Amino acid sequence: MSFERLYNPRGIAVIGASADLSRISGQPIAALKNAGYKGGIYLVNPKYQELHGLKCYPAAAAIKQPCDLALIAVPSNGVAAAVRDCGAAGIPFAIILTAGFREAGAEGRKLEAEIAKAGKDSGVRFIGPNCQGAMSIPSRMWCVFGSVSYETELREGSVSCAFQSGGFGYAVVNLAEAQGIGFRHIVSSGNETDIAMPELLSDFLDDAGTKLAFAYMEGTPDARQLLDVGRKSLETGKPILIWKGAQTEAGTKAAASHTANLTGNYDLYRAAFRQSGLIEVHDVEEIVDIAKVFAQGRLPKGRAIGVLSISGGSGIVYADRAVKEGLSLPSFSPQTVTALKAIIPSFGSSENPADTTASVFNDPTLFTKTLEIVLADPAIDQVSILLASISGDAATKACKAVADAAGSTDKPINVVWSGRRSKSEAACALLEKANVPFITTPVRMARAAAVLANFATDRQRLLPRTVPPPLKPRDLDLPSGPATLSEVESKAILGAFGIPMTREVLVPLGSDPVAATADLKWPRAAKIVSRDIAHKTEAGGVRLGLDTPDTLKVAAADIVANAKAYKPGAKIDGILVSEMAQGVEALIGVVNDEGFGPAVTFGLGGIFSEALKDVTFRIAPFGIETAREMIGELRGAKLFDGYRGAPPADKEALARTLVDVSRMAMALAPRLEEMDINPLFVGPDGVVAADALIVLK
Amino acid sequence: MSFERLYNPRGIAVIGASADLSRISGQPIAALKNAGYKGGIYLVNPKYQELHGLKCYPAAAAIKQPCDLALIAVPSNGVAAAVRDCGAAGIPFAIILTAGFREAGAEGRKLEAEIAKAGKDSGVRFIGPNCQGAMSIPSRMWCVFGSVSYETELREGSVSCAFQSGGFGYAVVNLAEAQGIGFRHIVSSGNETDIAMPELLSDFLDDAGTKLAFAYMEGTPDARQLLDVGRKSLETGKPILIWKGAQTEAGTKAAASHTANLTGNYDLYRAAFRQSGLIEVHDVEEIVDIAKVFAQGRLPKGRAIGVLSISGGSGIVYADRAVKEGLSLPSFSPQTVTALKAIIPSFGSSENPADTTASVFNDPTLFTKTLEIVLADPAIDQVSILLASISGDAATKACKAVADAAGSTDKPINVVWSGRRSKSEAACALLEKANVPFITTPVRMARAAAVLANFATDRQRLLPRTVPPPLKPRDLDLPSGPATLSEVESKAILGAFGIPMTREVLVPLGSDPVAATADLKWPRAAKIVSRDIAHKTEAGGVRLGLDTPDTLKVAAADIVANAKAYKPGAKIDGILVSEMAQGVEALIGVVNDEGFGPAVTFGLGGIFSEALKDVTFRIAPFGIETAREMIGELRGAKLFDGYRGAPPADKEALARTLVDVSRMAMALAPRLEEMDINPLFVGPDGVVAADALIVLK
Repeated sequence: MSFERLYNPRGIAVIGASADLSRISGQPIAALKNAGYKGGIYLVNPKYQELHGLKCYPAAAAIKQPCDLALIAVPSNGVAAAVRDCGAAGIPFAIILTAGFREAGAEGRKLEAEIAKAGKDSGVRFIGPNCQGAMSIPSRMWCVFGSVSYETELREGSVSCAFQSGGFGYAVVNLAEAQGIGFRHIVSSGNETDIAMPELLSDFLDDAGTKLAFAYMEGTPDARQLLDVGRKSLETGKPILIWKGAQTEAGTKAAASHTANLTGNYDLYRAAFRQSGLIEVHDVEEIVDIAKVFAQGRLPKGRAIGVLSISGGSGIVYADRAVKEGLSLPSFSPQTVTALKAIIPSFGSSENPADTTASVFNDPTLFTKTLEIVLADPAIDQVSILLASISGDAATKACKAVADAAGSTDKPINVVWSGRRSKSEAACALLEKANVPFITTPVRMARAAAVLANFATDRQRLLPRTVPPPLKPRDLDLPSGPATLSEVESKAILGAFGIPMTREVLVPLGSDPVAATADLKWPRAAKIVSRDIAHKTEAGGVRLGLDTPDTLKVAAADIVANAKAYKPGAKIDGILVSEMAQGVEALIGVVNDEGFGPAVTFGLGGIFSEALKDVTFRIAPFGIETAREMIGELRGAKLFDGYRGAPPADKEALARTLVDVSRMAMALAPRLEEMDINPLFVGPDGVVAADALIVLK
Repeated sequence: MSFERLYNPRGIAVIGASADLSRISGQPIAALKNAGYKGGIYLVNPKYQELHGLKCYPAAAAIKQPCDLALIAVPSNGVAAAVRDCGAAGIPFAIILTAGFREAGAEGRKLEAEIAKAGKDSGVRFIGPNCQGAMSIPSRMWCVFGSVSYETELREGSVSCAFQSGGFGYAVVNLAEAQGIGFRHIVSSGNETDIAMPELLSDFLDDAGTKLAFAYMEGTPDARQLLDVGRKSLETGKPILIWKGAQTEAGTKAAASHTANLTGNYDLYRAAFRQSGLIEVHDVEEIVDIAKVFAQGRLPKGRAIGVLSISGGSGIVYADRAVKEGLSLPSFSPQTVTALKAIIPSFGSSENPADTTASVFNDPTLFTKTLEIVLADPAIDQVSILLASISGDAATKACKAVADAAGSTDKPINVVWSGRRSKSEAACALLEKANVPFITTPVRMARAAAVLANFATDRQRLLPRTVPPPLKPRDLDLPSGPATLSEVESKAILGAFGIPMTREVLVPLGSDPVAATADLKWPRAAKIVSRDIAHKTEAGGVRLGLDTPDTLKVAAADIVANAKAYKPGAKIDGILVSEMAQGVEALIGVVNDEGFGPAVTFGLGGIFSEALKDVTFRIAPFGIETAREMIGELRGAKLFDGYRGAPPADKEALARTLVDVSRMAMALAPRLEEMDINPLFVGPDGVVAADALIVLK
């Protein structure tokens, strides 16, 4: 549904309006007036006939005027009734400021369930509770309390945002506005009992006036929806910046005591962001800078940046950061270099990053020419112009040249410039009119330009991808009820989904392990099989590298004895005798996350896994391109290309297996708790799972 | 020598003064006048009697007034003569703006050598050439050209800085000043033909008016001097921030074409910074923030931070970043929690980070009390107070409480606050008067507070360390002349310095490898020994894991045949037969760097080295504490603690060997080009070098 009437309401009912404008239930009344809200303001409080020069209604139902939004600030035990009253009065949206719900313990949790039900029953969609309110700059809907309720001069613009912490979120707004960002809708979402972050963001993408959205979030229950939001962001070409709070143990602990938000697994959030084109940010300046470069309304074709600087150091610092952020500074074409050399003095540089030196300003047409030359180079997707701290007339000339150049190209252009604005108003005006973003330091610009390029390439890379359907198993017969399955049971499930495994035979207790396994190649592994022994190695239940019938016999006997000593009474299904596999040791895991559902972990196995935690994550399911990217993301990815003379591993087979596991995880989702394939051997001719553990719920 | 007279000259001679104030040789004249420089300005230009209302002298010698500084802006081929003239006139310092030296090719390189000699001969110490000049705010010495020559309103303060790129450096100054930083001495150091970065920084530390120094540098020829600068910084308690340009290949390429600076090896610069207490920075905001937290003149005892927030999100974001930056947020003591619980409402949090909620401002004494309680907790070294974006009266009350608290503790206190200054002048004034730093975002403050804590702990950790002397070898007999030594020759040198090695025997060609090695244990390795074959494995010259006399014999014959086929005519010294070593594979390398001299690389060996480049660096020599830190810095450091049931490796023996190699490198420095010990096996009972390569120069 559209939130148009929430942000642009014809009338606003203030339920629980206070006689004291300094109270939480009074501040929004003052804010609406000060902001110049033009719709009806209907105070609801049975104790008064009139308040603050406005008529006071005994109940929402008494309003009898077009009213699209209710601001609810009554005590927590009265909120559910207030929501129902709004429903009865035909008010479709509410913002509930009141605190004292799940963040306040068991009693609050009960009250929160009641307001959720009241909303569902009455058809009222609501923001909050326990939030600082929401506002929309164009409509002057200023339904907030706290310091922002006094900031009615906030500049209008095309950035909409939503925050799971009102105090922090409005601080971000304040800072971003001071640096030139204009806002549209701003929502403090609080406990998100009804309207939650993904829906807010999705609505921003539908809103024609919103060009960029920003969210501060600690977590959201149905986190998987973020994948759809990301895809929609790429489709609509409107970026969504997300600051994920509670990334660390310390942050998570703080979130638990502050907000009772589900913070979830940060690794999975990061995976979801990367996977879907959402842009993760980590501080306010970054948000400002990214908003500025996106505001020019142009995307580069790729990651190649051309740099023109009047200061050597600026070019160096820019280059350092640009490549770290994933941009490339390709060499200019020979034609470009030749043309630049005719203009740039010999103590400058005509290579990328070019150092024009400040002498190009002696004749402004020269600067225009250098810009045109670089913009015409087909290898360059985006151009940054570094003007150091020039000011006054020099700045005006330079910015005139940049503004002209911007008008004659569709490549993104931006300017790094730290001159004093007070000495360069004309120059600033020229850039602003031409919609050319300018940022103070080369580092900040390189980072923002990289985000712009990433978004553009994410569109090309991610939009064509389709999500494969769940994998259909052959003859799958899952044990009923929660269970930690044995290796043999786990592998039976892998087998049903076609995951390649080591050739192996389950030898029942008492059978001759040599006679029973005549078909297997040497060397072999022998392992105890028992649901009651999850940690086989610890139990002395594993022997590797067995290369003769005699060693196999001894090993089998030892293993059984060890297992019995380790856990007397364990139900032992037998000994699993497998061919030893060769190749790079990898691992594939699946967790069925509370928020995201099935997600796949992939990493190097063996000592790499233990000592280095070299792993990467994706939300399931995903296709072969995503799987290939996962392989490339490991720090130790080179191991798959063959090392110390080993042949290259079959990375394509590995990628296919990652895809299959992700699809298998979706098929098993209702029953799957977690799954581990470790080790998975990646050899020159394919992969084999050598061990596996599945936990059902 | 002291640069006091350079920064506070009694008179300034402008050699090559221009009649045109807009030219490079004219702008500084205007700047000195506009800035209000009170000493004598002596223009030197034989073409004029008077210029700009000032007397013009035909030569420096004609000045006959106290004159401590010459600004030289004559053409490049006249600079050496100008320097000599200054010497003859008794002028001790010069700033040479002229470009056209080594950055302009061979002819310029010759001119640069001439001015270096002129300086030495005449006793004139000089800044530049090819620089934008220098200035000192207190004395109004404004000897600069370019945009900064018009910025004579720059605020005075206690930050001094030096830049290898004038344009970029002055842009940094502009930005930092706009964010509240005041400056003292500012130097664009140009080609640093005489006075180079380490000497400038060391002088800043001697200057009583400088409390913090900042440098932008791409590289410096005698980089080892930075270690002494860092130590002096810790001793004097004045931090030095360094922004190292040209960190990446792209940046290095840009630096080469822009400035012809020696950029050196970034890994070694980072090692030197870490090792000596210099603070690396990467953008302007970071510099500003660090300068602010240091300006309070207090250092914390350790890394424990206590956080008081009025906004849940701010506390979470702060905690996230603080721990990433190496701070700890310890639990408050039970007394602290109990005392806080009596004040903080139940929907807040009394754990660290505490969420007081904005309600504490209802009674300002409550906020003062919460501050006192947290400051009194002995586990807390530093306190951050997060005020989100409050403004007006609430801000004044809060800042009054903070200012009072700051006056009654010696623990560092800081404030995160993004309220509008225009609405909170009184609050800002309170904090400024109490010398309490405030910064806009939790992330920025967490980073700055961490730098403050790092500096404090670096003083405790690094100052007690002494540098061990070079190691004395027994019977060292180095081959003369440059040479890539064979394994046997290299190991002979290691042996002379007491580095433990595998037990082994060099078997001459034609001898029986079994009979000659009867004392060695099995299994063994056999390797070709030839100076002509540096890459033994590639040549088929290595066999490992030989466990019987027969396999050894076959291997020895194969190796010789392979080597002869690989490089016909190679001079073969024999076959080296060694006992196979056990343990974690590590590597120790030494490079004799052009700037730093001997430096040690340490990392994991084998596939870890090939696939993961898991290495760390230090400048030699160093003691055991530094060596232990190197071991701990590896991503795979856990491998040394025993994995998959292996016993823990002898990390102390490894640390001792690192120290010995660093001391050995110093002893060999005049002859050493590079050295590699790879692999070095780190077993439970010590280390053994299994292979080594030394290149002499």
